[in-house]
Order: sequence, then structure tokens, then C-alpha cells
Amino acid sequence: MKISVIGLGLIGGSMAIDLRKRGFAAHIIGVDSNKLHAHTALNIGLVDEIDTMDNAIDNSDLVILATPPNETVRLISKILDMIKNQIVTDTCSIKGNIAERIKYHSNRSNYVAAHPMAGTENSGPWAAKSGLYDGKAVIYCDVENSKPEAVTQVRKMYDYLNMRPLYMNSYNHDVHLAYVSHISHISAFALALTVLDQEKNEKNIFDLASGGFDSTVRLAKSSAEMWAPIFEQNSENVLTVLDTYIDKLNSFKEAINTHKTDQISEMIVKANRIKKIL
Amino acid sequence: MKISVIGLGLIGGSMAIDLRKRGFAAHIIGVDSNKLHAHTALNIGLVDEIDTMDNAIDNSDLVILATPPNETVRLISKILDMIKNQIVTDTCSIKGNIAERIKYHSNRSNYVAAHPMAGTENSGPWAAKSGLYDGKAVIYCDVENSKPEAVTQVRKMYDYLNMRPLYMNSYNHDVHLAYVSHISHISAFALALTVLDQEKNEKNIFDLASGGFDSTVRLAKSSAEMWAPIFEQNSENVLTVLDTYIDKLNSFKEAINTHKTDQISEMIVKANRIKKIL
Repeated sequence: MKISVIGLGLIGGSMAIDLRKRGFAAHIIGVDSNKLHAHTALNIGLVDEIDTMDNAIDNSDLVILATPPNETVRLISKILDMIKNQIVTDTCSIKGNIAERIKYHSNRSNYVAAHPMAGTENSGPWAAKSGLYDGKAVIYCDVENSKPEAVTQVRKMYDYLNMRPLYMNSYNHDVHLAYVSHISHISAFALALTVLDQEKNEKNIFDLASGGFDSTVRLAKSSAEMWAPIFEQNSENVLTVLDTYIDKLNSFKEAINTHKTDQISEMIVKANRIKKIL
Repeated sequence: MKISVIGLGLIGGSMAIDLRKRGFAAHIIGVDSNKLHAHTALNIGLVDEIDTMDNAIDNSDLVILATPPNETVRLISKILDMIKNQIVTDTCSIKGNIAERIKYHSNRSNYVAAHPMAGTENSGPWAAKSGLYDGKAVIYCDVENSKPEAVTQVRKMYDYLNMRPLYMNSYNHDVHLAYVSHISHISAFALALTVLDQEKNEKNIFDLASGGFDSTVRLAKSSAEMWAPIFEQNSENVLTVLDTYIDKLNSFKEAINTHKTDQISEMIVKANRIKKIL
């Protein structure tokens, strides 16, 4: 099968590596508006050739759109305008906006909304690696709006990447992700900013990080290019969660300020329930 | 050397294992007010015998106080009252309160304040394990108030545990720890509470946790017995940091709410500086 990967960063690049290595893709055309990324992807063998988006789509059976969220929203209708029988899928971590935008597009059924939930804090074609997706979850959204053969093809592709399928509608996807992913990132970014502001001595941060900071702050290494648009596009859900989160922090603050150690203990014991789940 | 370990949980138990295995301690007497913990520690071989605190101290050269912070503050003067020439050290993660309490004790110089920075989210003698301390940092506080031979002895002990020594006064210790450890834990507890409150479907949490939640929330598995007293005893510093942290979260909220994506990006790029340090 001939495939195009539009967006040759960590996500698209890592898919390209394993889809070829594992025999799903015979030929991979890469597209990237960033010339350095495109050049690098070709040089390190992520793709067989680099072409324009038009040519890439014309010459593919399957098109994978793996750009940052704002680009994906911008490109999706344009790509659906261009296809004939090609199947299109994206990897975007926000689904509601895209779903709205293409709801009535005549080629809607050729598109399969998917969100492979994997990543590292690194980005760019250099960060691409084999095995990134193995054992992780892929969320399919609104599959009833895609034609069955398109869903089958995209599912087959994610089967090659060893991903566990989950199904939900775009709206629920965005709500759940706000809770389980987006707030974790804001929490980590804010934590990094707090510590960087106050600890002028970087050696202290390094020396003392094993006290918990290193694990909580890992996500603060994630890129602005990816995350600013996510927060923007899922703003309503993210703001709701952020309010709840700030409320919980204020409860801790209040309990610490009034020396209500029993109340602090109760909150921690409640939080410990997460042990049973994870 | 004969040593006593008062408090046979993760911290004291893990020290006992390696101090014997690596030849520092010839005989280890265990003390724990929790009978089940004491019994378990003896049964699984963490200690050679269990005794009362009085007898244990009488029969030791070195006393390690490894109880939760509130117990340590309660016990430290009592232990200094009981010693003759024994050296006493503690593992408490808050140092200011203890320092205040024993400032003018006639046996002050036999005590060495130390904070070995290691742990897991598990607790109790069952959680004790070899190698817990290898390569981690141990912070010595106010060493000028301890007699040199006591410092030498305690340093020798932590050398057997392969710990990297750091030195600071108790006040600075508590400020730094509020930033680099305590706030990370509050952040994780609050995050767990937020998600547990809203995600009624635990399977969703499990399925989607790889989106960042799993790493950020790891510390939320930590015990109330240990952490509630830490927040209580370091309340002033923790409240200052918590205020800054909530301010940063409010900046994110404001920027998301007013769709200032550039400002969100700027904050993320600033937070990314943590990459260079960790």
C-alpha cells in the first residue's frame, strides 16, 4: 500500500518507521511545510520521497495527517476536497473542532478520526522511533460517520502498530482528554514555572529533584507548538477542569493554613484511591 | 557497630537492609510502636531483635530515628535526654522544627540532622528494599552544631548507602524542599482528586492514563501518614509556594479564556527551560 504522511515529526515519523518495517506500507511519501524537517525525514529514511501535498495525495491509497492540532484543523477540509477514493485519517489529540468542520463534507465518510495516544517530550523527525505506539491506546471517534471499509483499513493500520482500540464520540473524547491528559500538562508547566521563578540556583533544582519534582515535572518538557493549540482548541473543557483543580488546591491551602491536619489526611487518603486504578 | 532503628517502615527498613548487608552494622535493634510493623520487621529479617526504645538506645552506638515527621519532632528531645555517648541521627524531611526544639539541649552535639532523599510511594516494613538510597542525595543540616566525630560517623553510614552529601542550614532546607518536593506532592494529590471526582468511569482513567496522567499523578499514591505532617510542619513555606503555583495556573486560565495562544506558548517555552536542568 502507498501512504502519505503529512507532518514528519515525532508522531508521523514514528508511524512511518513501523508501518514500513512491519510490512503495512510499501511506499511512503512525506509532506512537511518545514523544509528542514522534510529534508531530515528523507535523509534518515523515515520516508521514500518528499513531495507536495497535492502530489502526495494523488499518489496514495491512505493519507495520514500528523500535523500539530491547529494545522490539522486548517488542513482537513482542504484535504477532503482533494481526494477521490483515498482514505484519510488524522492523529490530532482534539477531535470536536475537526468533527464540526467537516460534518457536512461530501467526502466525510472517507475520513476516519483517530487519536493514537503516545508521545514523548521530544519533537521533530529526529525524535521519531520504532515501538512508540506498541501497547498504547488509539481512540476512534464517530466511526458511524465513516464508511466501513475506511474504518477497517485504518484499524488494520493501527493493528500493525499494536495499538489497543477504544471508541467514543468526539465530544466525549475532548472531555475525557481534558481530565486525563491536558490538565496534567498544565499542572506540570505551572510547576516548572513556579520552581524556575523561585529557585535561582539551578544546581539546587538538579540536586533535590529526586524528592518528587522530577516525575511530576516531566511533562513540562513538552513543546509549545503542540500544546498551546491543544489548550486553545479544547478551551471550554480545559477551563472547567482547571477550575476544579484550582478548587482542590485551595482546599489544601485552606486546610494547611488552618492547621487542619485531619482534613489534609482525608484528602490524601481520597487521592490514594488512584492506586487501585493505576 | 550496634545500631538502633526507631521506626521500621520503608525508610528505616531499607537502611537496615543495606547497613547490615554492606558491613556497617553488626547488630540491629528495631523499635516500632506499631506491633505488626515490629513483628514483620523481625520476621523478614530487617532487624536482629525488637526491643523497647529505652533498651535499644542503651545497647547501641548509633540511633537512627526514622519515624514520620510528627513522631520525630515528638521523640527527638526524649531520645537526647536518654543518651550517654550515643550518636543520634534522624531521617526527617522537615528540619526547622526539630532544630528549634533541641537548640539548647545539653546533648545537642551528639545529634546529626540528616535527610536522605529517597522513597517510593509504598510504605511499611514490607516496602523496605535494598538499594533504595544508592546514588541519591542526603542533606546534612546545621553540621556546625554537631560534634565532628558524630558528623564523621553519620557521614560514614551514608557513604555505605552510596549517598551524595549536600549541606545546608535547616531553614534553607525547608524552603528548598517546599519548592522541589512538597508542592509536587500537593499538585499530584489535587490532580488525582480532580480526576477521581469527575471521571466516574474508572476504566476510562485506566485506558487514557498514558496521555500524561500516569506520570504526573504517581506521587498521589504517597501516604497521608507521612505527608499530612510534612505539610503541617512546613506550612509557612508550603503556603508561599502554593500561592505562586495557583498564580501560575490562573495565568494559564486567563490566557486560555481570552484565547491568547501566543501568551500560552510563551509560558510553555519558559517552562521548557526545565529541560536544561533535569
